[in-house]
Amino acid sequence: MDGVRALVFDVFGTVVDWRSGVAREAAPFLARHAPGADPHAFADAWRRRYQPAMEEIRGGRRPFTRLDVLHRENLEAVLPDFGMDAARVPAGELDALNLAWHRLDSWPDAVAGLARLRVRYIIAPLSNGNIILMTNMAKRAGLPWDAILGAEVARAYKPSPEAYLRTAEVLAMQPGEVCLVAAHNGDLAAARRCGLRTAFVPRPREHGPGQDRDLEPEQDWDLVADDFNALAARLGL
Amino acid sequence: MDGVRALVFDVFGTVVDWRSGVAREAAPFLARHAPGADPHAFADAWRRRYQPAMEEIRGGRRPFTRLDVLHRENLEAVLPDFGMDAARVPAGELDALNLAWHRLDSWPDAVAGLARLRVRYIIAPLSNGNIILMTNMAKRAGLPWDAILGAEVARAYKPSPEAYLRTAEVLAMQPGEVCLVAAHNGDLAAARRCGLRTAFVPRPREHGPGQDRDLEPEQDWDLVADDFNALAARLGL
Repeated sequence: MDGVRALVFDVFGTVVDWRSGVAREAAPFLARHAPGADPHAFADAWRRRYQPAMEEIRGGRRPFTRLDVLHRENLEAVLPDFGMDAARVPAGELDALNLAWHRLDSWPDAVAGLARLRVRYIIAPLSNGNIILMTNMAKRAGLPWDAILGAEVARAYKPSPEAYLRTAEVLAMQPGEVCLVAAHNGDLAAARRCGLRTAFVPRPREHGPGQDRDLEPEQDWDLVADDFNALAARLGL
Repeated sequence: MDGVRALVFDVFGTVVDWRSGVAREAAPFLARHAPGADPHAFADAWRRRYQPAMEEIRGGRRPFTRLDVLHRENLEAVLPDFGMDAARVPAGELDALNLAWHRLDSWPDAVAGLARLRVRYIIAPLSNGNIILMTNMAKRAGLPWDAILGAEVARAYKPSPEAYLRTAEVLAMQPGEVCLVAAHNGDLAAARRCGLRTAFVPRPREHGPGQDRDLEPEQDWDLVADDFNALAARLGL
């Protein structure tokens, strides 16, 4: 990790537990509109529409559109799967539920680990989440970012190379001076192809019990650590 | 200030004392290359090239270029005024001096005032300074921003309307939910024309002793306060 000056972080899954948070926020909504629906299944279904929505933008078929807008569209699209009719749910309730993604709790080690890492490195999200989403999340959860970077600043969604390369450019750093911290092998692989350094922090409960992906490093990442405190310790912080 | 949810701040002059900071950073450089030159006069001369450089971009004659690049060009341009030849000064020394703008001290009330304001509002710079400049400055001075916004995020320099309007858009707020805090009447006037709320905090020593501009509010700004602590107190914080 010689020469690294900034640590940039995947957020959904790596820093915060999106599945539990969305399920918690959706539960009262579902109790009103779809009694008996499983909030975790709802969170999973909503999230399954995340990559396909961004793929339209990565593929150039749609101009850059921030994630809050994609989340809102995906929310309407997922309602019928749970027996709801978007036209019969007040728009204000959908707008409010859409902010569930702004109110996610961090993994227990995240705030303390980031505070340690921040002593030596510039730390920032490199998330597909948009700026106000990341800002509200950080303010609520106490995440001590130095700046809010990511897709909306780069105007490109990971794993498009521009998302990583423009982030390094904004930091006025060479790609090799920036390290991506992520719980997802695919994100790290894309960052490595752009010349960034890579740190893998597995989050084996991101997808709940029975998770079968991203349990182990799939390449020889520059660092592998069990959580952010272990990452700080590995870096001598 | 009813309905205001974010406070965005002009930075050079309003949050930090650029003149003293640049003079301090330039002093050893001048001692080597232009003995006898006045560091404050050097800071003033460098800063005088700031608005004309941005005007090329505001006028559409040059694509958006971040302030670090403009500062570096302006630095080379100002050297002859102090008897120096840019070709005879090592580029590495100019690169290092250019980072003077990343190492400015805040006014004595700024950190404490921002910490109070941050309890209720999202706080962020809306500066013409670029993201890494603002990030390095905040880290060094302890400015507790929630996000780094400004010209590089908006891809437009103040006082162009896009700088204010795109900042509100990124915040997912109406312009009237955002208040600009600035020591400069012109900046506030431009923000008001875009529908933002306005708070004037005079900084009567920004330009040193004998300052003759921006000593008083020139319009009925929504708030006027002597410093950031007084601003927090006016807002009941």
